[in-house]
Amino acid sequence: MKYFTTVHDVANPAQLIEEALALKKEPFSHARSGKHKTLGLIFFNMSLRTRLSTQKAALNLGMNVMVMNIGAEGWALEYENGVVMNGDKAEHVKDAAAVMGLYCDIIALRCFPGLKDRALDYGEKVLLQFMKYSHVPVISMESATLHPLQSLADLMTISEHKKTEKPRIVLTWAPHIKPLPQAVANSFSEWTLQAGYDLTITQPEGYELCEDYTRGAHIEYDQQKALAGADFVYVKNWSSYSNYGQVMCSDHGWMLNNEKMKVTNGAKLMHCLPVRRNVELSDELLDGPQSLVQSQAENRIYAAQAVIKWMLEKR
Amino acid sequence: MKYFTTVHDVANPAQLIEEALALKKEPFSHARSGKHKTLGLIFFNMSLRTRLSTQKAALNLGMNVMVMNIGAEGWALEYENGVVMNGDKAEHVKDAAAVMGLYCDIIALRCFPGLKDRALDYGEKVLLQFMKYSHVPVISMESATLHPLQSLADLMTISEHKKTEKPRIVLTWAPHIKPLPQAVANSFSEWTLQAGYDLTITQPEGYELCEDYTRGAHIEYDQQKALAGADFVYVKNWSSYSNYGQVMCSDHGWMLNNEKMKVTNGAKLMHCLPVRRNVELSDELLDGPQSLVQSQAENRIYAAQAVIKWMLEKR
Amino acid sequence: MKYFTTVHDVANPAQLIEEALALKKEPFSHARSGKHKTLGLIFFNMSLRTRLSTQKAALNLGMNVMVMNIGAEGWALEYENGVVMNGDKAEHVKDAAAVMGLYCDIIALRCFPGLKDRALDYGEKVLLQFMKYSHVPVISMESATLHPLQSLADLMTISEHKKTEKPRIVLTWAPHIKPLPQAVANSFSEWTLQAGYDLTITQPEGYELCEDYTRGAHIEYDQQKALAGADFVYVKNWSSYSNYGQVMCSDHGWMLNNEKMKVTNGAKLMHCLPVRRNVELSDELLDGPQSLVQSQAENRIYAAQAVIKWMLEKR
Repeated sequence: MKYFTTVHDVANPAQLIEEALALKKEPFSHARSGKHKTLGLIFFNMSLRTRLSTQKAALNLGMNVMVMNIGAEGWALEYENGVVMNGDKAEHVKDAAAVMGLYCDIIALRCFPGLKDRALDYGEKVLLQFMKYSHVPVISMESATLHPLQSLADLMTISEHKKTEKPRIVLTWAPHIKPLPQAVANSFSEWTLQAGYDLTITQPEGYELCEDYTRGAHIEYDQQKALAGADFVYVKNWSSYSNYGQVMCSDHGWMLNNEKMKVTNGAKLMHCLPVRRNVELSDELLDGPQSLVQSQAENRIYAAQAVIKWMLEKR
Repeated sequence: MKYFTTVHDVANPAQLIEEALALKKEPFSHARSGKHKTLGLIFFNMSLRTRLSTQKAALNLGMNVMVMNIGAEGWALEYENGVVMNGDKAEHVKDAAAVMGLYCDIIALRCFPGLKDRALDYGEKVLLQFMKYSHVPVISMESATLHPLQSLADLMTISEHKKTEKPRIVLTWAPHIKPLPQAVANSFSEWTLQAGYDLTITQPEGYELCEDYTRGAHIEYDQQKALAGADFVYVKNWSSYSNYGQVMCSDHGWMLNNEKMKVTNGAKLMHCLPVRRNVELSDELLDGPQSLVQSQAENRIYAAQAVIKWMLEKR
Repeated sequence: MKYFTTVHDVANPAQLIEEALALKKEPFSHARSGKHKTLGLIFFNMSLRTRLSTQKAALNLGMNVMVMNIGAEGWALEYENGVVMNGDKAEHVKDAAAVMGLYCDIIALRCFPGLKDRALDYGEKVLLQFMKYSHVPVISMESATLHPLQSLADLMTISEHKKTEKPRIVLTWAPHIKPLPQAVANSFSEWTLQAGYDLTITQPEGYELCEDYTRGAHIEYDQQKALAGADFVYVKNWSSYSNYGQVMCSDHGWMLNNEKMKVTNGAKLMHCLPVRRNVELSDELLDGPQSLVQSQAENRIYAAQAVIKWMLEKR
């Protein structure tokens, strides 16, 4: 596995999930795999869970970790070729990524979308250029369009809690006060569909996700209809894809709560965190027995650990 | 020891001091105690000594350390329950602290007071909520009201230099250009009194500390009278507790210098650093042979190391 | 080696270069030399290559590393003696450096010039005071006037690629959009001259470097004449030394490209990075086969590793 940026980078996602769950049972079973290897964590954007869990994953494998906050500790990078660099960009990604690749055995990168220009964001310029120029394996810690480490952790969590082979999963849009990326929703869709699960996506009109990720999912605009009989409900806000980056709806009626969950099959609740309490989800639901959000967060460690392990093993 | 936030969290402070002094002699005597354990350092506020010494302490025990600057690298947290989170707080402490607890075996936390609202600060909301929601041992790296790692290092330093069983200790207020927390002064008072030392606190009218921490100390408003016969003089500024957070006095007469120290019993000088030279203390005194400030700073390593060691040993 | 701040701190530079090249071949040959030792990286200014390569070097030797961004994570320091510290400086370097020296076995420091006051910058106050007060070995990670880790890496690179005992080296000034320090150019000059290489410096009038570093070099104001027959061409911008910190020339004619390189002896191209593409250098040259810039960057690891190794061995 040279890159981990989408489910399609993984030869056998089911096996990766299994190995991640095995590492959760014995986190230090491969504590020397990463000896004398260095993981570079490059953040263009803030992070709490991703920063700590990925760092922890590498330490569990005996790797060294170097953290770099580009922007805060670094400088603005140029991504265009052939440009006369007489503006505010102090270094070209060609040079910066190549150097980071010399210093790190694996690079993990977080680069959010700007949410202004869809073609630009969905072109994944930053991620692709780091993949091209760093010459080392690259892990996405959430790019403009996808968040595969989160999805891998989510799939682990579903594996741990599912009672049927093919559980019925609902991904429901939730209100939020500001425009968020589509990355978690895109990514959750592609991973659950790849796993062969039954996925229904419910959202207000105008919030349809990019079909490249959702092909094969049921689309249902009536939230209550969508929830009926669900085994897992994944709650997440995203901004509009068609009206790119816009907040089209502030209907608080889309907030999930216990009352709405009554029509499900005693569904488990999922959310990637951070969550706006009583905006996206009610307190009662989040703090109740159905909530898997802390398990998802815990699984982030072992998701990252399995990915790094495969890269170290050149599988 | 599940928590280390006040002297009252410690079953046997005298023994903790002894063990810290033993670790100072052999810092690597327990270099594998922390193998595969992770210490998370969470900073809501700046730090130099605390950041480096606590990190060093953990490394001496073979632990991994992850540093997180909340604010700079993280985001604003919500502390109120039941609130509709549609403002500037991106995550509830319930969720964030719980996740950090999943990723760290011990959490060390720095959270200063705002110095605007006494009830809020002395309620120690941030610290208490991290203790409640993280589900792991928590070390205070200076909270709104106390700084126990500093006090433990201070008590180690007194142990190393005292010539009598119960030395006469003076804590004297010093001028400063801005309002500072009462934490170091509160904490030093409770630790020295617990140790059974003879403590005199001297300060201008209006600077009385909260009695919860100073009960048993002599209060003397005349600095020279207080200093007479002292074995140790601890110099520190703090803002008013009664007129909460205010600077009531800018009397440079309170600055300590060699002349004033003449009435002491050849007293040793203590200060937790950072110090405003020639505002709180004169250069001559700070750079002179009586000064223990560098020893106090050095002992910060072993104070933290002893605390972490006890936590790892579940003592 | 107590300090590494200039070539003159090194008893035998040729041997240091040789050992650095040996470490490049076997980076983990001394992976336990730094056991239980701590390197403190203190940054007053931004860094990418230096931060990562120095950290990597220390990890290769089995050291612990603590990174401190003074300013971002710390506070403003006072450097004057005897001052009444009632301004914006929260701590005196005397106290802060002494404490850092207690917590670290070696301190590495980055402190750029202000480029306003030549006497101030060339006085190297910050570096010298850390050397004076920290009481531990100090490595310059680029000071106001010199960048010895870069120069050591540069000399390693020349050693690897030179075809004659005494290659002809040209250091050429290049345009830039803002005033840069003279440190890399000063440092490259003193290291190449110490090595006995034939150095020519070419620059527009008014850009002459301080003679303390360039004595023994040929000065040639005609860039094409300077380049004739060169084996290595080092491209770098610097601001004026005589008209201190000023940008005197924005003549794009000084930008280096393939056409200009034709008069050289098939010269290799060097630059310390970051580079402004098509301002200092053309893309074609930087991306072409003559470019050694990535080798220079890679050698930064082993340059730092050799320096730290010598310090650990007290050589």
